[in-house]
Amino acid sequence: MRNRGEQGKPWGGRFQEPTHELVEAFTASISFDRRLFRYDIEGSIAHAKMLARQGIISRGEARSIGKALQGILQDIERGAFEFSSKDEDIHMAIEKALIQRIGDAGAKLHTGRSRNDQVALDVRLYLRAEIQEILEEVLSLKAVFLELAREEAETILPGYTHLQKAQPVLLAHYLLAYREMLDRDESRLRDCYRRVNVLPLGAAALAGTSLPIDRAYVARLLKFPEISRNSMDTVSDRDFIAEFLFVASLIMMHLSRFCEDLILWSTGEFNFVEIADAFTTGSSIMPQKKNPDVAELIRGKTGRIYGNLVALLTLLKGLPMSYNRDLQEDKEPLFDTVDTVKASLKVLAEMSRHLKFHREKMEQEAQGGFSTATDLAEYLVMKGIPFREAHGIVGKLVRFCIESQKELASLSVTEFESFCPAIGEDVYDCLSLRNSVRSRKSYGGTAGEQVQEQIRQIEAQGRPHPGRETS
Amino acid sequence: MRNRGEQGKPWGGRFQEPTHELVEAFTASISFDRRLFRYDIEGSIAHAKMLARQGIISRGEARSIGKALQGILQDIERGAFEFSSKDEDIHMAIEKALIQRIGDAGAKLHTGRSRNDQVALDVRLYLRAEIQEILEEVLSLKAVFLELAREEAETILPGYTHLQKAQPVLLAHYLLAYREMLDRDESRLRDCYRRVNVLPLGAAALAGTSLPIDRAYVARLLKFPEISRNSMDTVSDRDFIAEFLFVASLIMMHLSRFCEDLILWSTGEFNFVEIADAFTTGSSIMPQKKNPDVAELIRGKTGRIYGNLVALLTLLKGLPMSYNRDLQEDKEPLFDTVDTVKASLKVLAEMSRHLKFHREKMEQEAQGGFSTATDLAEYLVMKGIPFREAHGIVGKLVRFCIESQKELASLSVTEFESFCPAIGEDVYDCLSLRNSVRSRKSYGGTAGEQVQEQIRQIEAQGRPHPGRETS
Amino acid sequence: MRNRGEQGKPWGGRFQEPTHELVEAFTASISFDRRLFRYDIEGSIAHAKMLARQGIISRGEARSIGKALQGILQDIERGAFEFSSKDEDIHMAIEKALIQRIGDAGAKLHTGRSRNDQVALDVRLYLRAEIQEILEEVLSLKAVFLELAREEAETILPGYTHLQKAQPVLLAHYLLAYREMLDRDESRLRDCYRRVNVLPLGAAALAGTSLPIDRAYVARLLKFPEISRNSMDTVSDRDFIAEFLFVASLIMMHLSRFCEDLILWSTGEFNFVEIADAFTTGSSIMPQKKNPDVAELIRGKTGRIYGNLVALLTLLKGLPMSYNRDLQEDKEPLFDTVDTVKASLKVLAEMSRHLKFHREKMEQEAQGGFSTATDLAEYLVMKGIPFREAHGIVGKLVRFCIESQKELASLSVTEFESFCPAIGEDVYDCLSLRNSVRSRKSYGGTAGEQVQEQIRQIEAQGRPHPGRETS
Amino acid sequence: MRNRGEQGKPWGGRFQEPTHELVEAFTASISFDRRLFRYDIEGSIAHAKMLARQGIISRGEARSIGKALQGILQDIERGAFEFSSKDEDIHMAIEKALIQRIGDAGAKLHTGRSRNDQVALDVRLYLRAEIQEILEEVLSLKAVFLELAREEAETILPGYTHLQKAQPVLLAHYLLAYREMLDRDESRLRDCYRRVNVLPLGAAALAGTSLPIDRAYVARLLKFPEISRNSMDTVSDRDFIAEFLFVASLIMMHLSRFCEDLILWSTGEFNFVEIADAFTTGSSIMPQKKNPDVAELIRGKTGRIYGNLVALLTLLKGLPMSYNRDLQEDKEPLFDTVDTVKASLKVLAEMSRHLKFHREKMEQEAQGGFSTATDLAEYLVMKGIPFREAHGIVGKLVRFCIESQKELASLSVTEFESFCPAIGEDVYDCLSLRNSVRSRKSYGGTAGEQVQEQIRQIEAQGRPHPGRETS
Repeated sequence: MRNRGEQGKPWGGRFQEPTHELVEAFTASISFDRRLFRYDIEGSIAHAKMLARQGIISRGEARSIGKALQGILQDIERGAFEFSSKDEDIHMAIEKALIQRIGDAGAKLHTGRSRNDQVALDVRLYLRAEIQEILEEVLSLKAVFLELAREEAETILPGYTHLQKAQPVLLAHYLLAYREMLDRDESRLRDCYRRVNVLPLGAAALAGTSLPIDRAYVARLLKFPEISRNSMDTVSDRDFIAEFLFVASLIMMHLSRFCEDLILWSTGEFNFVEIADAFTTGSSIMPQKKNPDVAELIRGKTGRIYGNLVALLTLLKGLPMSYNRDLQEDKEPLFDTVDTVKASLKVLAEMSRHLKFHREKMEQEAQGGFSTATDLAEYLVMKGIPFREAHGIVGKLVRFCIESQKELASLSVTEFESFCPAIGEDVYDCLSLRNSVRSRKSYGGTAGEQVQEQIRQIEAQGRPHPGRETS
Repeated sequence: MRNRGEQGKPWGGRFQEPTHELVEAFTASISFDRRLFRYDIEGSIAHAKMLARQGIISRGEARSIGKALQGILQDIERGAFEFSSKDEDIHMAIEKALIQRIGDAGAKLHTGRSRNDQVALDVRLYLRAEIQEILEEVLSLKAVFLELAREEAETILPGYTHLQKAQPVLLAHYLLAYREMLDRDESRLRDCYRRVNVLPLGAAALAGTSLPIDRAYVARLLKFPEISRNSMDTVSDRDFIAEFLFVASLIMMHLSRFCEDLILWSTGEFNFVEIADAFTTGSSIMPQKKNPDVAELIRGKTGRIYGNLVALLTLLKGLPMSYNRDLQEDKEPLFDTVDTVKASLKVLAEMSRHLKFHREKMEQEAQGGFSTATDLAEYLVMKGIPFREAHGIVGKLVRFCIESQKELASLSVTEFESFCPAIGEDVYDCLSLRNSVRSRKSYGGTAGEQVQEQIRQIEAQGRPHPGRETS
Repeated sequence: MRNRGEQGKPWGGRFQEPTHELVEAFTASISFDRRLFRYDIEGSIAHAKMLARQGIISRGEARSIGKALQGILQDIERGAFEFSSKDEDIHMAIEKALIQRIGDAGAKLHTGRSRNDQVALDVRLYLRAEIQEILEEVLSLKAVFLELAREEAETILPGYTHLQKAQPVLLAHYLLAYREMLDRDESRLRDCYRRVNVLPLGAAALAGTSLPIDRAYVARLLKFPEISRNSMDTVSDRDFIAEFLFVASLIMMHLSRFCEDLILWSTGEFNFVEIADAFTTGSSIMPQKKNPDVAELIRGKTGRIYGNLVALLTLLKGLPMSYNRDLQEDKEPLFDTVDTVKASLKVLAEMSRHLKFHREKMEQEAQGGFSTATDLAEYLVMKGIPFREAHGIVGKLVRFCIESQKELASLSVTEFESFCPAIGEDVYDCLSLRNSVRSRKSYGGTAGEQVQEQIRQIEAQGRPHPGRETS
Repeated sequence: MRNRGEQGKPWGGRFQEPTHELVEAFTASISFDRRLFRYDIEGSIAHAKMLARQGIISRGEARSIGKALQGILQDIERGAFEFSSKDEDIHMAIEKALIQRIGDAGAKLHTGRSRNDQVALDVRLYLRAEIQEILEEVLSLKAVFLELAREEAETILPGYTHLQKAQPVLLAHYLLAYREMLDRDESRLRDCYRRVNVLPLGAAALAGTSLPIDRAYVARLLKFPEISRNSMDTVSDRDFIAEFLFVASLIMMHLSRFCEDLILWSTGEFNFVEIADAFTTGSSIMPQKKNPDVAELIRGKTGRIYGNLVALLTLLKGLPMSYNRDLQEDKEPLFDTVDTVKASLKVLAEMSRHLKFHREKMEQEAQGGFSTATDLAEYLVMKGIPFREAHGIVGKLVRFCIESQKELASLSVTEFESFCPAIGEDVYDCLSLRNSVRSRKSYGGTAGEQVQEQIRQIEAQGRPHPGRETS
């Protein structure tokens, strides 16, 4: 192999000065994009096979390339590969090693492609694999919520709006609400996956190539169901990363909400749940402390993922066509997001499996706050009183109870009648927690029969759409 | 209708003090949510029909409600409805007017629902309609790009990477790249639409209701194919708004990139395009100025939409279950985003129809920058030289040309041979712009035949997926 | 006055086509920048005075301009001024009216200036005034915290870290912590004010002017202590707005934290505080509800202000020199932020004045959670046991208490001794809440004497820096 | 040293189960906060000195601690210190090593402090040092702009607004505009520094301590001019980090604008500047490419810093008092921002020193675009024509020139007169570029004498405020 330009840069032919060392350090991505090595090699092997099939290189060269790349892969995997910031990026590092190992055949690998489409390929292969892993974690956490819901099918929880007691609900119902959020996350992940799963290779620098490549063959080798349709768009498109960062942002947002509840419920004041020792940590100064650190960190890491989304959106704004080096800054936010979301889902699932709910405390709190006042209003509606009027009557009853420090259920029928003559002996039924919950039988409501129906449908269908209107 | 609590608040029964006037002003949403009036009324009419069908109110009451709501709708449409910040929100304003007009029957409307599910319904109805309008605008702009591509099928443009001349491309190819971005936007809008198009009504405050409502019937009346499955999730879910804001962010990002190009291309230095006078404005001080204001504003408004997304994501982070008043802050960013995206798409489509491309200047610029150097390298590859080596040879040729102020095509064969003996008389073919473009026949490349094939597939299929791998 | 260009645009001379109506609507800022009218007129009057003083217009013309502008001001204030989106912006609307009223003299007003420096002036005048108002609100809220701290000087609150009980503190100490945050906000507002308070007028379009203007005189008239030094920077600088949006973001963040606490403390479970009825609202469906809406909205509006900051930062990223129309998008986020921050500070101060703290419940909760465990460890340190070892001993004592359902203070000396022989009869002193609080006398600690010292210093100095190291 | 709790955790006394390994990994910060080691040790040595001075530990113990910490410092510096994720964080890692080395004396170090105030100290010490380094880089870049301005004092550049030619300016004037931006950045950095430079140590967990510590002495040792005043605020305050991230965002925004210009100016079309080979890179496929990668990366990294700011702001929103584990997520965005801003400033300064401006091309472009049209309007004003009318006349002249493909300076006096009889022979003076520039003598304008005056003032004063109004 002869000289390939000054200073050893594979693109150095046209340059007179060597790259400034500050620039080497500032522009190199090898410190973070090395994590793509597996996908870079997978893509290069497919590319070489195609080049040989099309007669652009010989079959022997392709075999030699394939074998040497497998060797490099193994070397990297067992830590026997030297990376240097002189190599700029993972693509150049591997190509350089390839040429060192097999000479001219290696120097033919980059035929008909550019780093612009190559990096798009690597990132799509990487993200495709990671979305599948994240989907697994989402499914695991959904399963945990389902399992907990089965266990807490009879537990009564005060339902809150504005963090004020609103109406009693089943704890199972609450847990399935989070499962619903994850269900939407799963749906968005799958939609995102479709748009990730498109072959970019073959766009070359931006215009395609004059060499007789076969993109469909590469797509088959790499199992891409779709091939990008416009080479200029292909090398400048980072939509699929932005979309993933957004989907991840919503996942983290949902987790942050559950974690907020866990933090609240772990306080001495709520005391609705005990997080297992193994999922908490202590204080360096206060010997009695047991802190819900995992929940707090997940809540905090939500900001990190939002920040990653903002970073990429900012970067993309107003970029001229087509590839611009700014795009290199897409990778660190992506990698960090993948790692954070996976770890958060995994640790939260594990921690949730070991939650101990304090059922008595929940039920005791549900007794307070006049949480069956709406039941009383609905009782009056069934007696023929317009809802808005019924609401007013019950509001006054509540005020009376506050002032006289009573509960609704402790009022006498005579007292009730003084507010509304329609109230009779049967009123006490609607004031009990269990009756209140049992009565909310509207589709999607908290009544036990509704919750059991949801569980049955989930069990039956994997991903059911019982609510889908079919008539 | 009797007294409904102190101070005229429909929920005032339990309160002793009137609301502070600062609080009235601070919490009222009527100034912005009034724009939902049409959807609020549409939802209420469907709700009343269902209440009657289920025997919760009489058929006569439902008819009376329906008629009065139609009257209110007309009054609002013709500006004859008085809004007051005392009314808090659009729901209360309309309910109050209804009760004033028809008394007790009106006071029955709010039976079996809460503002929590009502506002979710209104916003979903609103956004469903607006996404359809935005889809129309996306399709229009896609059509403009297609039309322009047809017109510029022969125009040669310097293709840029890093804003440096890279390779010549067809202007049509460039235009279709933006069409691809919009195609993905369309795809994301449709996915988002599915998740918007779910009936929330019937979740009531958070737990469902004890009244025998029929959500499936309401879904049929309002044409929702799906019904939300968990009442707690339903009243606290704003995923669908966040997703829309993200999809809108990517649309604006794409527009910002095209606008960036237009701004560059309108400079005296590039001079690739003339924006029609009608789509520019002048300066208050400099009489000669003609500014690409529309393109600049669209680029700037991208920040606005990103900001709206951040506002909502921030708001949702760490909220405890279930409804919290913070959620009221979802509406202004949503409305602003809908308005901004629609207006930007519309004005950009109209402006783009009136662009005048300066074909000669484009082609002239494409001649510069050694933009066929890659063709020369690929020529060497076809002569059997490994690509990496070919790249080095051409790099040196380019450096020689720069130093001697020549073009590649002006070098003699002897000069070429001194760099590489494999270069022969046929080299000049690969150095011409038209040949360069014509040669890039790989799928998705810039060759005229590829571009025409794309246009044919778009024409044939509406939304084609020619690249979808089928073998 | 003769024709000033086609279509009535003051800059229309060079244009052949009228502006497209979509463009009129899309580019006009009059719907929101009209709120600058007072500052636009104030600036124009000063500009006219200077023009006359420099002999560029006559003194009579300046008087005529001044009088007519005062008339326009009064007309706008009493709602007698017609705005039209044809007028583009507030500058053009006022200039047009001026010319209509006084003819040629009015047409001379725009001499030696551009809208580029004019709008920078208007916004700086506006923001200067608004920062002063916001400072007033910050000072008011600081005063409320001080007043509450005086009232709650003896109240014991459980201090939390990780929302787990940590150590008892004085409620006054907690309240003064929020006062500290506002103190920093005040400091940042004042720093921001300095950078806002710079005269931009005279930069003209971007290059200054050839007319003999006197910027120092205008600065004196408008009370600017500083004059911008570079005309290109002047017309493209929006740092001062971004800085204000950031300062506002931190203010809102601080308020969001206090509101979070209020929301928690208002729950039935904490029950540490009662928000006055006048600062809460009810539910449309649940008659018993009394919700902390104001606190929730402030928490939610934090997202809005963050969004405004992101909008502006995004917009500014990568703008070429100098003025670009994107900058017009600075105003709506600014106006919205000013309104939101002012209203939030005002309503929170008013609401806080009417908080009723439940002192007994706070103290009762402070008894729990082994909140004096650190005191016990510090007791052991004073007995000569290394802190890390003392921590371990107390940790085991706490575990023993949890398992045997006891409090630390209920253990016998014998029990204590079985964990550590150094513990003696005097141990019970360090376990009492009041002793614990009283002992934390380190500078800035929660001991009553420290808190009183802070209050004294605040009272004495307005804005004290007692902590500033002077030795 | 005896047992300090199960599982070797220094806080493990009260726990029954060991920490789950997922939790170890998820909560540990040692992988990133180890970079604080120097500050952690510096702070601990000061703390130990104070403990001894106050008689809380013996002088011998303090000496032993100090010596051992110095040893640990050296071990870390020469890579001989083993970090483990079991150690949680840098504080625990160092304390553990200390106890291993010196036993009981080491176990006394954490007396009277908590990790809550310790980490606040470490980060403040770190950021204080880094702000000083960043200030140095800002000053260096300011010096580069000044030096370039001196060199380009005669170079004429087309000044742009809306990226359309507006008026000719001096290149020196343009360069000093960026210096102004950095001047404000410096001012904001200094304000931020004041708020960073406050001693937090002594706040302990959140309430101060009962031990007789002396915070003023520690402040003196560590050179903090101010001491935090409220312990609860102290451990939960991250304002100073958020403020730094914002200041860094504006720095990056300014750099992104200059880089945008460099990218534009490096295009073949503008061709205003040549970036030295050493500061560019090439293409893997296109042999002729020389790309402005450094400028693009700085522009792209702006998004990264904005993202870091959003991450922290999101995290802080709505956190309850006082320390919460979410706050641990402050460090990575801070470290990344420090590294990115420093590297960007440094490489940009170096690159800027090697820019080669193409003066002829700039001047040639400045001739176009009717860039002296405003001069002509101002000429008419001096002839007594109202500015608005003069603007209209020149606008029509420009339109005439465009239609007849002429320059203003090539019109005859007769042609001029047909548009306005006031135009005479002297008109040509105002149409020349050099005269145009020379005439803009208003304070801060682009005239050579103004620019020289700015340079003189900068040279004379270091940081001058020539514009400060003093009369």
